[in-house]
Amino acid sequence: MASDVRIGVVGATGAVGRITLDLLRERGYSHVRGLASARSAGKKLGDVIVEEATPATLAAGDLDLCFFSVGTATSRELVPHAVGGGALVVDKSSAYRLQEGIPLVVPEVNGHRALEHQGIVANPNCCAIPLSIALKPLHDAAGLTKVRVSTYQSVSGAGARRMEELRATPSGEGNLGMDWDFDGEEYDEETKLRTETRKILELPDLPISATCVRVPVLIGHAEAVWLETEAPLSVDDARGLIGDAPGVRLEEAPTPRDAVGIDEVLVGRIRRDEGARNGLALFLAVDNLRKGAALNAIQIAEIMLERRAVAA
Amino acid sequence: MASDVRIGVVGATGAVGRITLDLLRERGYSHVRGLASARSAGKKLGDVIVEEATPATLAAGDLDLCFFSVGTATSRELVPHAVGGGALVVDKSSAYRLQEGIPLVVPEVNGHRALEHQGIVANPNCCAIPLSIALKPLHDAAGLTKVRVSTYQSVSGAGARRMEELRATPSGEGNLGMDWDFDGEEYDEETKLRTETRKILELPDLPISATCVRVPVLIGHAEAVWLETEAPLSVDDARGLIGDAPGVRLEEAPTPRDAVGIDEVLVGRIRRDEGARNGLALFLAVDNLRKGAALNAIQIAEIMLERRAVAA
Repeated sequence: MASDVRIGVVGATGAVGRITLDLLRERGYSHVRGLASARSAGKKLGDVIVEEATPATLAAGDLDLCFFSVGTATSRELVPHAVGGGALVVDKSSAYRLQEGIPLVVPEVNGHRALEHQGIVANPNCCAIPLSIALKPLHDAAGLTKVRVSTYQSVSGAGARRMEELRATPSGEGNLGMDWDFDGEEYDEETKLRTETRKILELPDLPISATCVRVPVLIGHAEAVWLETEAPLSVDDARGLIGDAPGVRLEEAPTPRDAVGIDEVLVGRIRRDEGARNGLALFLAVDNLRKGAALNAIQIAEIMLERRAVAA
Repeated sequence: MASDVRIGVVGATGAVGRITLDLLRERGYSHVRGLASARSAGKKLGDVIVEEATPATLAAGDLDLCFFSVGTATSRELVPHAVGGGALVVDKSSAYRLQEGIPLVVPEVNGHRALEHQGIVANPNCCAIPLSIALKPLHDAAGLTKVRVSTYQSVSGAGARRMEELRATPSGEGNLGMDWDFDGEEYDEETKLRTETRKILELPDLPISATCVRVPVLIGHAEAVWLETEAPLSVDDARGLIGDAPGVRLEEAPTPRDAVGIDEVLVGRIRRDEGARNGLALFLAVDNLRKGAALNAIQIAEIMLERRAVAA
């Protein structure tokens, strides 16, 4: 069945779009079209020839499923046309993530929410996905009460052009950066990490303090996490819970490079934080283009398709 | 007077040793000798010709002041000879940092402790120096109760050879790393950051949980810090206290590159951490070779020399 699904990848020439095309091919989907801005129309990506993503193309009714990896403004403009044309949409921008009634889904954490869609499911921020995967089993066992997280985010999270820029930067001239919109108090990336993780975990009041930092690494995000729980949780228990959780692989000290090309979130360095009654620290790494974006979106779509198949 | 002091820089060919020579020249010290391993003897560093650092050379009695930027084992072996020869020693290794009776000094924080020396003052870890400078005014005003810190440490902290390696790495192939000794629970760098900051601030029981990470940046360390205080402290008050403190410059969002060549610790992103009753978050950057090492050591030495001048 899967191979019959007619799929559109909007933003096909971007860093996440390209990985989406690769992963769809690997998974045996053969009716895949690549769409992008007029500027990229005609470009070849493997055996896909890029078409212009116009409202009319998306509304034509010949797409069953549409992945959007474009900017928030473009998603707001184009997604409704794809939905109107009858496509199921997984949107990777932040346009719909916090909208009431639109599920924000990490399949391993709240996959059932994808079934409640009304045409659109939102794919979370690349740091909120691995964070919620690592926190979920600990919350289920002991009740999360506080989270602090600092990130080490690769430039691929800022798009294909920034990857080219880093490749062109003389070695050793890399710097840290905070290249997000600032609201006077924090970066919107930090707000997203907090508000989206709360929505995914269904803990609307969970205190989450985030410091987001871009590092001169091409692919792979990492996060240093401190968490506190209601009930005590030993380091061994936490290790066992995370080791048994779906979508996670335990590693001693995971780095971005270890995570590249890997589907799972790598979690390690689980240890006690003596500063809290029930405090733990951990470190995680994820392939931000795969599980942090393209793979998670495809997994969401597969839940939506399964549901459609059952309903049909 | 200063220019008459006979100074030896042991480990002169290393990343910190070279900066030490530069800073001494800038500050008008003219009787400066560079010492290093036999392998480097004869090498020219500006107008300094490197001599071999042997026990006999150091014990000869013709040095008033000696900076050691060598490994811990070499410091343990050679420092006693320099002290025996009558030199005041500032040691930048971790050999003496936690030893009872040996001051561990950040001049802006506990400079008076340098006067209690019995020949040796230890220069702290490159991350403990800026952390204690940023925390000190907040502690004095409101009483620190907890600290959590994740680091973004440049490769120059691991030495000149690692700087060459990063320069030779193809652009975009940088990765995060944790290249310190691991004790089964944490890296020795994390233990140092906790135990040394406690000694400098004279808060032996302060809970400090650290996650240390090497980033592919040449020079400049950064730290994401969460802190809690006994008394409430507004963001504005914290900003004022840090802005008025010695050795600090307030910046909006400091990065390692901003800090390179700068004497001060750059502190920014001061904001509330809603997860704690009296919680704040901040971000700092420092030139790890200057204030994180060479400059701090010279400032220590200048306190020791002043005292000697008064005593004489």
